[in-house]
Amino acid sequence: RINGDRLWDSLMEMAKVGPGIAGGNNRQTLTDADAEGRALFQSWCEAAGLTMGVDRMGTMFATRAGADPDALPVYVGSHLDTQPTGGKYDGVLGVLGALEAVRTMNDLGIRTKHPIVVTNWANEEGARFAPAMLASGVFAGVHSLDYAYGRKDLEGLSYGDELARIGWKGEEEVGARKMHAYYELHIEQGPILEAEGKEIGVVTHCQGLWWLEFTLTGREAHTGSTPMAMRVNAGLAAARIFEMVQEVAMAAQPNAVGGVGQMQFSPNSRNVLPGSVVFTVDIRTPDQAKLDRMRAEIETRAAAICEDLGVGCSVEPVGHFDPVTFTPDLVSAVRSAAEKLGYSHMDIVSGAGHDACWAAKVAPTTMIMCPCVGGLSHNEAEEISKDWAAAGADVLCHAVLETAEV
Amino acid sequence: RINGDRLWDSLMEMAKVGPGIAGGNNRQTLTDADAEGRALFQSWCEAAGLTMGVDRMGTMFATRAGADPDALPVYVGSHLDTQPTGGKYDGVLGVLGALEAVRTMNDLGIRTKHPIVVTNWANEEGARFAPAMLASGVFAGVHSLDYAYGRKDLEGLSYGDELARIGWKGEEEVGARKMHAYYELHIEQGPILEAEGKEIGVVTHCQGLWWLEFTLTGREAHTGSTPMAMRVNAGLAAARIFEMVQEVAMAAQPNAVGGVGQMQFSPNSRNVLPGSVVFTVDIRTPDQAKLDRMRAEIETRAAAICEDLGVGCSVEPVGHFDPVTFTPDLVSAVRSAAEKLGYSHMDIVSGAGHDACWAAKVAPTTMIMCPCVGGLSHNEAEEISKDWAAAGADVLCHAVLETAEV
Ligand SMILES: NC(=O)NCCC(=O)O
Ligand SMILES: NC(=O)NCCC(=O)O
Repeated sequence: RINGDRLWDSLMEMAKVGPGIAGGNNRQTLTDADAEGRALFQSWCEAAGLTMGVDRMGTMFATRAGADPDALPVYVGSHLDTQPTGGKYDGVLGVLGALEAVRTMNDLGIRTKHPIVVTNWANEEGARFAPAMLASGVFAGVHSLDYAYGRKDLEGLSYGDELARIGWKGEEEVGARKMHAYYELHIEQGPILEAEGKEIGVVTHCQGLWWLEFTLTGREAHTGSTPMAMRVNAGLAAARIFEMVQEVAMAAQPNAVGGVGQMQFSPNSRNVLPGSVVFTVDIRTPDQAKLDRMRAEIETRAAAICEDLGVGCSVEPVGHFDPVTFTPDLVSAVRSAAEKLGYSHMDIVSGAGHDACWAAKVAPTTMIMCPCVGGLSHNEAEEISKDWAAAGADVLCHAVLETAEV
Repeated sequence: RINGDRLWDSLMEMAKVGPGIAGGNNRQTLTDADAEGRALFQSWCEAAGLTMGVDRMGTMFATRAGADPDALPVYVGSHLDTQPTGGKYDGVLGVLGALEAVRTMNDLGIRTKHPIVVTNWANEEGARFAPAMLASGVFAGVHSLDYAYGRKDLEGLSYGDELARIGWKGEEEVGARKMHAYYELHIEQGPILEAEGKEIGVVTHCQGLWWLEFTLTGREAHTGSTPMAMRVNAGLAAARIFEMVQEVAMAAQPNAVGGVGQMQFSPNSRNVLPGSVVFTVDIRTPDQAKLDRMRAEIETRAAAICEDLGVGCSVEPVGHFDPVTFTPDLVSAVRSAAEKLGYSHMDIVSGAGHDACWAAKVAPTTMIMCPCVGGLSHNEAEEISKDWAAAGADVLCHAVLETAEV
């Protein structure tokens, strides 16, 4: 059994770095707070006898040596970056849960054949730099390093420059490491496990996603002296596209979602009809054909809405992954570990995207989930219990030991 | 006749201060660019022999002495501040047209009984600090000085602090000056004069306005793992309110408008359903009863939309003026001046709000309008012809001379 108190203490300690305004965290990618969190994690890794490597995307790999010099490592991790108003557990549980598993192996003097690498993927959230899961995406060969370095935040600062600024641009070629397997523990971020009263989610799949960034071009004009008939109203077009996305998502039920989280009016003045409106539609479903249909319907109907209002409409995909099926052997290892340890469990599909989705492209991969209160995440009020965290890390530790071979 | 070339040169000179990104201007209230524009205007006033006074709101009053020491001054002006992506003429024409009228009187050695005060009202646009026409509103006793000083921009900077920072906080009590009359020349900012082929708009009324700032409270949650049925979707509520405002405005035709120019999602992250959405509805019509009905209908229907989605809804009026009827004697003076000078003209209702709307509360007041290309304003592409500008300033000069008594 892992040490639930020690895990919880580490979670609370990390939560002090980049505090939010309502009990959560604002430790966005490549900010000073991110650098501080990384340094804290590094000090813990060193104390646990791990060897740190950093790649050119800033991903941190802390290695516990294995007995067999030729055996590929088992990677175990998640991310320490957060949303601007994020929770204390989203991602952090997966990194510190992996660290706790290794600390437990140290305590018990357990030696594994395969090395174990505790991993902190850079820019998982995608809040500051879209898309999400950027570093794991470069690792898996989905994005080029140049593409990643060129991603910009709302202030126009680039990923490459900010990574250098905080001092975490490593030397390792991204994706050069070969993995025996990849495991990720994460909070569910949805309501199912809590509602079903299960301690462990055995993750079998992950939904696919499209982020469609719409740029609508209207005509800037005075809100008072411009007659209704003369308006080229990009704000109204955006409103109609919102409602249409909602309709498309509802028509795709069950197991599909659609919404909008980011929105920018320009020039954003009360008495100016916006010249441009930029927003990102987020659609997800585990069903590949449905995902493609939703995207096509949204793009077609948005074009018609804009045409009707004389508004210009362009769409750029700024994030995407296909639905993922995790590796059956590893899924079984998780289920067996939960059984053996006596935790209640159920199979589950991940609603959120995770670094595991990209890792699955290059290695046998799976995930473990624990419940969160009210299904709430991407909210500073995100909460889990110490017991849930401990159960998740316990199952993680046992499954990893199974794969890393004692 | 005024000197159209000199007026145009001054307009072009002022347009170099706080240039925009597309040929217009970004000389927002109480920015460094505003200070620079004020200094340029002040130097011109001094060259024309005027005496500058500044009140505690930062409004500039440049006086040309009159023959009768007991006669109240005729005030003539508008504003030099612009929208973030504003035009070169909105407001500026009224201030520099007044200056040109005075320069012409100087050239011709015309002495008036009443002093003439060329006026640059502070913060007319309301883009940086809502509401619009803030300094003239304090002057007219509609707002308190404390209220005005406490208005904040999107970065949280206050009017009072920013006014002190740029060095234009005057000593004069706001509103202490008594006016014999107030005249304002302005571009129409709408399509009517150009469409009707008229050089001069004789402004008889101004539409009333409400700015209703909505704050919708949803629940921040993950866009991927939060099922549709669990969402408390403030973004969707905002979209429905947009569409509803459009419906209300269309049902109120003719002579009514409604729209939204400013919108803020929070935390504004692509994978977070917004916890709050703040936006301002702008509704206008010259008909008082209709204006009140529109506001009531919008507030009632917005509350129902939000209730249906479980979204919290609060509404704060952040700008308002009732429809205005300008002073018939001055309106006649404008019409007569246009007749006498041989300019084509028509009566018109102002679609935009102006400092004249507040001045009308404390003095006989009217306005003169000239056409603008395509009715476009609050857009850097705003354009007028030199002839239109000259005609407007000519009519202004003659009407003012009539009222100021030669
Ligand atoms: N787990 C998580 O919140 N990842 C961010 C990427 C996503 O939006 O799903
Ligand atoms: N003239 C002008 O654009 N004034 C700003 C106030 C308004 O929105 O009408």
